[in-house]
Amino acid sequence: MGMSSIDSSGIVTLITDFGLTDPYVGQLKGALLSSSTKVTIVDLTHSIAPHDIPAAAQTLFSSFQFFPAGTVHLTVVDPGVGSTRKILAATGAGHYFIAPDNGIFTILLKQNIIEDVYQITLEPGARSTTFHGRDIMAPVAALLAKGERLSAVGVPIIKDQCTTVALPGFVEQEDHVIAQVIRVDHFGNLRISIKKSDLDRIGAAQSQMRIAISGMEIAGLSATYSSQETGSLCALFDSDGFLEVAINQGSAAEILPAQLGDQVTLWFSR
Amino acid sequence: MGMSSIDSSGIVTLITDFGLTDPYVGQLKGALLSSSTKVTIVDLTHSIAPHDIPAAAQTLFSSFQFFPAGTVHLTVVDPGVGSTRKILAATGAGHYFIAPDNGIFTILLKQNIIEDVYQITLEPGARSTTFHGRDIMAPVAALLAKGERLSAVGVPIIKDQCTTVALPGFVEQEDHVIAQVIRVDHFGNLRISIKKSDLDRIGAAQSQMRIAISGMEIAGLSATYSSQETGSLCALFDSDGFLEVAINQGSAAEILPAQLGDQVTLWFSR
Amino acid sequence: MGMSSIDSSGIVTLITDFGLTDPYVGQLKGALLSSSTKVTIVDLTHSIAPHDIPAAAQTLFSSFQFFPAGTVHLTVVDPGVGSTRKILAATGAGHYFIAPDNGIFTILLKQNIIEDVYQITLEPGARSTTFHGRDIMAPVAALLAKGERLSAVGVPIIKDQCTTVALPGFVEQEDHVIAQVIRVDHFGNLRISIKKSDLDRIGAAQSQMRIAISGMEIAGLSATYSSQETGSLCALFDSDGFLEVAINQGSAAEILPAQLGDQVTLWFSR
Repeated sequence: MGMSSIDSSGIVTLITDFGLTDPYVGQLKGALLSSSTKVTIVDLTHSIAPHDIPAAAQTLFSSFQFFPAGTVHLTVVDPGVGSTRKILAATGAGHYFIAPDNGIFTILLKQNIIEDVYQITLEPGARSTTFHGRDIMAPVAALLAKGERLSAVGVPIIKDQCTTVALPGFVEQEDHVIAQVIRVDHFGNLRISIKKSDLDRIGAAQSQMRIAISGMEIAGLSATYSSQETGSLCALFDSDGFLEVAINQGSAAEILPAQLGDQVTLWFSR
Repeated sequence: MGMSSIDSSGIVTLITDFGLTDPYVGQLKGALLSSSTKVTIVDLTHSIAPHDIPAAAQTLFSSFQFFPAGTVHLTVVDPGVGSTRKILAATGAGHYFIAPDNGIFTILLKQNIIEDVYQITLEPGARSTTFHGRDIMAPVAALLAKGERLSAVGVPIIKDQCTTVALPGFVEQEDHVIAQVIRVDHFGNLRISIKKSDLDRIGAAQSQMRIAISGMEIAGLSATYSSQETGSLCALFDSDGFLEVAINQGSAAEILPAQLGDQVTLWFSR
Repeated sequence: MGMSSIDSSGIVTLITDFGLTDPYVGQLKGALLSSSTKVTIVDLTHSIAPHDIPAAAQTLFSSFQFFPAGTVHLTVVDPGVGSTRKILAATGAGHYFIAPDNGIFTILLKQNIIEDVYQITLEPGARSTTFHGRDIMAPVAALLAKGERLSAVGVPIIKDQCTTVALPGFVEQEDHVIAQVIRVDHFGNLRISIKKSDLDRIGAAQSQMRIAISGMEIAGLSATYSSQETGSLCALFDSDGFLEVAINQGSAAEILPAQLGDQVTLWFSR
């Protein structure tokens, strides 16, 4: 187990499924600031679909690396609140991570980013049975942002004890892989459940790849949206390295149409 | 009238009905930061339904206590902007509150949290006839966050002069109360217009309570969501103390279905 | 070309078309904070319709003036990302402005607010082909917020080289002008494509003006929403100086009904 000596950046990022209509996000921020008025709070997103742990895991993994080392990343998607599920605090790649033990760390664990994991045992004060994000996780996040060590808030556990969840992937065949649409973004771009690094490993020749989705076929990969004519369908790697199906200055989700979970087949030669 | 000596936390929270699409929230934040670049701004919510004063009153009351003492809570739901309605600044429980005089302080007044109330008379500069949140309330909030006293921004008035609004409540009978759905949250949980403290006062035996809503009946109260099987309907007290009808890992609003204003009957023995 | 000596306020404002569901906004904020943990980030809006450059131009123009001098305003609506379009950094009225060269500066240029314009040539590090807001513009914004000069991030270009876009306007006739609905806000208020300053210049007598929209006619202009009876249709100048059609405590967009692009005729005598 590492020594986990991290200099705090004073920043706490938030990923939740709370939405922005209810006062939940505000109350959680109040709890953070009540523990430390010096903390800088950054909203990553509060629009994770309710209880969608794989989406939270992906957003956390895609985003943490853009923050300075020493940042505390608090992810509250917590359908098991009030049950016996643990609350975890971990270190990895110079960052802190706090979340319920329900699979939110799945990708960080698979990618060997997580180093030390602690079960939070600190009880910062009175707590409800329905909102541990506000009553336990936020005060602990503020403590870490103030420079406390993990050993001050919990007890170490072994990584293998952490809960993981199944994540959307792909099935590899001789001359094709079958993947699926795992996100439809605000622009109507479709994220596919396979990354550039997967295709490199498989040895698929990208220039001759054909991508079948919703009865349409895309030939080859583009470097940028704008290397295509306006309105034409293309496939490229997005800024997180995932395969993406997009339309230059249009919405692929509307035009195809396509939605979450739709099957995508990539034909290739090696 | 108290002395209202409050040490500012430097934090200003915002509750508005502006939504996030228009530049109104940004302009108000600009006005705050133009008065003081040191202020820490926290969004509680900008999704109060347009002109819904009771919802703003409830969100303010539910949220302020989670912030450090010395915080300024600015609530801008202001259908009377440009009329002769007053703008108020008040102290209570070590916090500052700023809002138009239209009932936003109703719950804070009923709960005897408000201590001193001032009518804001300061004119911070040029002002529009349609956006006093930006042109008057934000600069005053920044002044209080910088350490100014209420007497620097207005003149004291007596609490009984403040406007109040009717709030959703319940009707008590011999063996039941009739309440209503007052909020449907992002998770589809239904907030009912009665609190644990009300039921304690009535002397209703909670273990044998039966709750009738949308033709369904719930027997007894749960301690947590997860003490129920996944997908089963339950009733519990939410993190603000209100009765809540919920489905473990599901949406009660969708399943029942139910919506704002629906009647809920609680049968009990004393 | 001016000397562009600006003392930074340490504030960076954001206008994007990213929405709040995806992690794009959070990643961009991470890039800002990785360059400088001291920067104060303010969200103006992330709800510009995808690729709607005129709306971004209007929001930027309407909002920047409410911030303290020395603020950096970063606008990322970037359908041409990955193409050869330039990225610009400019000074004007004591503020900094950063955006792709696609017309976002159109109104600032027409109003002679922009002083110096530089093409950003700095390459802050590895960059994707699809997200220059995060990989180039955010680090440059952080540098300016830390006190760097434009000359440290790019090379000067002449203003006439900047791309501009057509903006909605009005057609002037002898006794009327024809304009259009250019925004429907969160309250259902309708912004019309003509400003008080335009009507003053035309010499239209405002008290006798008649406004025809959706088969309805409004006689005269109001000073405030609340100078009308609740529920009655009125026209007034909004807090940005535009003509606005509204209903006191109601939604004009619903009642009329009306939507973006609808024609509005103003009849007047001079």
